[in-house]
Amino acid sequence: MQLWFHEEDNGLKFSYKIKDVLYRERSAYQSIDVIDTEAVGKMLLIDGLVMITESDEFVYHECIAHIPALAHSNPRKVVVIGGGDGGTVRELLKHPSIEEITLCEIDDKVIEASRRFFPEVSAGLDNPKVNTYIGDGVNYMKNHEPSTLDLVIIDSTDPIGPGEGLFTKDFYSSVAQSLKSNGLMACQSESPWYGSESLQRIFDNVAGGFGHYRPYVAPVSTYPRGYWSWTLASKEAWSVGDFDFDRLELFADSLSYLNKDLLAAVFSLPQFYKKKLGLL
Amino acid sequence: MQLWFHEEDNGLKFSYKIKDVLYRERSAYQSIDVIDTEAVGKMLLIDGLVMITESDEFVYHECIAHIPALAHSNPRKVVVIGGGDGGTVRELLKHPSIEEITLCEIDDKVIEASRRFFPEVSAGLDNPKVNTYIGDGVNYMKNHEPSTLDLVIIDSTDPIGPGEGLFTKDFYSSVAQSLKSNGLMACQSESPWYGSESLQRIFDNVAGGFGHYRPYVAPVSTYPRGYWSWTLASKEAWSVGDFDFDRLELFADSLSYLNKDLLAAVFSLPQFYKKKLGLL
Repeated sequence: MQLWFHEEDNGLKFSYKIKDVLYRERSAYQSIDVIDTEAVGKMLLIDGLVMITESDEFVYHECIAHIPALAHSNPRKVVVIGGGDGGTVRELLKHPSIEEITLCEIDDKVIEASRRFFPEVSAGLDNPKVNTYIGDGVNYMKNHEPSTLDLVIIDSTDPIGPGEGLFTKDFYSSVAQSLKSNGLMACQSESPWYGSESLQRIFDNVAGGFGHYRPYVAPVSTYPRGYWSWTLASKEAWSVGDFDFDRLELFADSLSYLNKDLLAAVFSLPQFYKKKLGLL
Repeated sequence: MQLWFHEEDNGLKFSYKIKDVLYRERSAYQSIDVIDTEAVGKMLLIDGLVMITESDEFVYHECIAHIPALAHSNPRKVVVIGGGDGGTVRELLKHPSIEEITLCEIDDKVIEASRRFFPEVSAGLDNPKVNTYIGDGVNYMKNHEPSTLDLVIIDSTDPIGPGEGLFTKDFYSSVAQSLKSNGLMACQSESPWYGSESLQRIFDNVAGGFGHYRPYVAPVSTYPRGYWSWTLASKEAWSVGDFDFDRLELFADSLSYLNKDLLAAVFSLPQFYKKKLGLL
């Protein structure tokens, strides 16, 4: 018997041959599954969509964590919304300046599944610098003390289901309010190959909360179409020249995607993507 | 009834919902099919593998053509090996300095299919600067007059089947011999996500023919894992600073992937890929 997992996306299907089904859970919010695949190792699924795989989670987590952390001159206090697998926290902990990370995850079953099946991804969650708060990210940010954070990282699922509220203008405004004047937000912002309407909605909402935003891109082979974007947003103007390139050297050996060259290169966007975002 | 086309790759499957099967041909060398899909428009398949799709052929063709053409100070005489769909020729014709392009394609049925179903890709094949030669690329390059070409572009299928000979050290050596001292070769060099053994074999062979080589990368959503590489090779040292960035402006409006930023950024390689190639 051959078992395959399929992820379908408007007339496209991405399928993985399964070695083993390791975990199946229905939480209060979503379905959570862990499968072991021939091609990409273990895989965490939420509502039937690929969240992380052993083969390429490093691209996603290095991009969502180190780009904002190195774009900031001295990040100390950080909030991560979503990201219950722990990969973003693992990368943030490589920055010695970071003193406190609060992980706000709505679903403790995601954390539980990651601790059990992805110990290399979730290990950082036990670090004394990390506080885990189980609750809704929208409320958490709405009620956060203003002007106190250096970085907020939105490590969310897609803008459907429980993640929907994390893509609204109101949410981005409350994130902006929680940040110090030189604070930065990074969020995952879907695939550049998606339709311009859905992409523009995200960027219009980010722009509604922040004065400045810069999308950036990298290949994540197990996300739809193999190519993903994140967005760095700030209240003050920011440019690639503001990166602390040298700080990357502190942990360069631990990275599998980023290097000094790519810190700048991820902000070089294809023409077709710029057109979709109205940046041409 | 739902029809789907599947491309399988070691425990991974990429599938496309089919609107229509437009063409099915078995040539002397390979099977050639054209299908119309919901997600990515019309698609040309060779031996069941995706060659081009309407949705993203521009990324592949802009990268394989403009990177070498703008890396050269004054390209005039060009040979394209493979590339019977005509997309590489279409892009090369945007360079006013190019006086002559010889397309050497082994299978005239590929050209026929492209002319019939992909008129926007194949249009350049009728340009008076273009000569079409139907024959084997390995023999063509072996017998080519030495030191006469400015660019040779290897727009081949994968290193299995008819394309296999286009990845050997002997072949790359004959390409190097056909080039003037400042001549450049560009070839497609598979996905950075592939295993290091198969990737290293390609680069070892390129290095055997040329003193210098520089891989570069871009997202092609319909190739396995959505991320592809090409390699620029030369007998003389070459660096990104040698690009004629301004020449891009002559046809910048016609491009959907490349821009000045990306000319340099495509050479910024992920750490995992550098490790596979022994570049770290």
